[in-house]
Amino acid sequence: MIDHIEVRTPGKGLHEITAAVQDSVRASGVDEGLCTIMIQHTSASLTIQENADPSARHDLEGWLDRHVPEHDPHFTHTLEGPDDMPSHIRAALTSTTLSIPIARGRLALGTWQGIYLWEHRTRGHRRRCVLHIGT
Amino acid sequence: MIDHIEVRTPGKGLHEITAAVQDSVRASGVDEGLCTIMIQHTSASLTIQENADPSARHDLEGWLDRHVPEHDPHFTHTLEGPDDMPSHIRAALTSTTLSIPIARGRLALGTWQGIYLWEHRTRGHRRRCVLHIGT
Amino acid sequence: MIDHIEVRTPGKGLHEITAAVQDSVRASGVDEGLCTIMIQHTSASLTIQENADPSARHDLEGWLDRHVPEHDPHFTHTLEGPDDMPSHIRAALTSTTLSIPIARGRLALGTWQGIYLWEHRTRGHRRRCVLHIGT
Repeated sequence: MIDHIEVRTPGKGLHEITAAVQDSVRASGVDEGLCTIMIQHTSASLTIQENADPSARHDLEGWLDRHVPEHDPHFTHTLEGPDDMPSHIRAALTSTTLSIPIARGRLALGTWQGIYLWEHRTRGHRRRCVLHIGT
Repeated sequence: MIDHIEVRTPGKGLHEITAAVQDSVRASGVDEGLCTIMIQHTSASLTIQENADPSARHDLEGWLDRHVPEHDPHFTHTLEGPDDMPSHIRAALTSTTLSIPIARGRLALGTWQGIYLWEHRTRGHRRRCVLHIGT
Repeated sequence: MIDHIEVRTPGKGLHEITAAVQDSVRASGVDEGLCTIMIQHTSASLTIQENADPSARHDLEGWLDRHVPEHDPHFTHTLEGPDDMPSHIRAALTSTTLSIPIARGRLALGTWQGIYLWEHRTRGHRRRCVLHIGT
């Protein structure tokens, strides 16, 4: 089954999409299988991270901000704004696709794992993910 | 088919799990298909790396240790110890899920490729991976 | 279905393989499904990146070159040349496997997304990818 998730991000940051992906899995009726999520953009990405303490996500974003900073004088791809090129690099260092096993009708995530859509651009965007749910 | 692999890591480092994954593939009886591995933790991760010379894995770990160091004064998520926040970042920069084609009943890895569970915490942990093997 | 793609890279850089992967999808006759690509090497990798402006790929390569440089005095794995160890690290930071949903017989990529094989070695190599296309 192919499904779509659309997220309107308020801007830079990690936005949890676990519930939306779980809803698609439930709707598919698949009891044991595999759910693959792909984000259709190159300046936002996906990651599985700790869903408990928000400070972990804050520090994760901080590390990437400091190591892939805006206004790096080496950048030549600057026409779309200072936040565009760092976004592509941050996306390449994280994930564009994730595949999660399904067991007993649910995503087989660990207790502390959540699925996040990571907006790398400063302003909010409408982001689309394509899902494949199979057996 | 859904299967599980449990690894008791002795602490920080790359621990090869290729044989355990191959055992699951053999047990599944799948001749041509896809094997997906997901680690159910956010302070350990997965990677496919060179299985020949251990110095390559040593240098890979060293790079990540130097670039995502403990005691970074920017970190605020420090309650679980100085090795916790670097572990989450190192996990985000490597992989939580891997999908490997199966051909003639075996993982279609290259000659020098091995599958590794990467423990990022200082002390050993019991780590669980979920596998999906399908056609 | 299992398929193979072989690419002779001219040397370091991002080489687009979207058309070759799309050809395999078409040949499989799969209308709705999942296409997984795995590169069988540890000194080259895969990434989904912007396929429009080449300057984005240029800056992406530049960032990785500066942050994982050759001749890092910490490296011990140097027998295969100064470009070998950085290649393994660059591969670990990007992707060895990618899974892309198939909808209406085509890879469900976003408008600006292309699939790239990223050669990290200085000299050209013959690189093999294994594809699994399933429903």
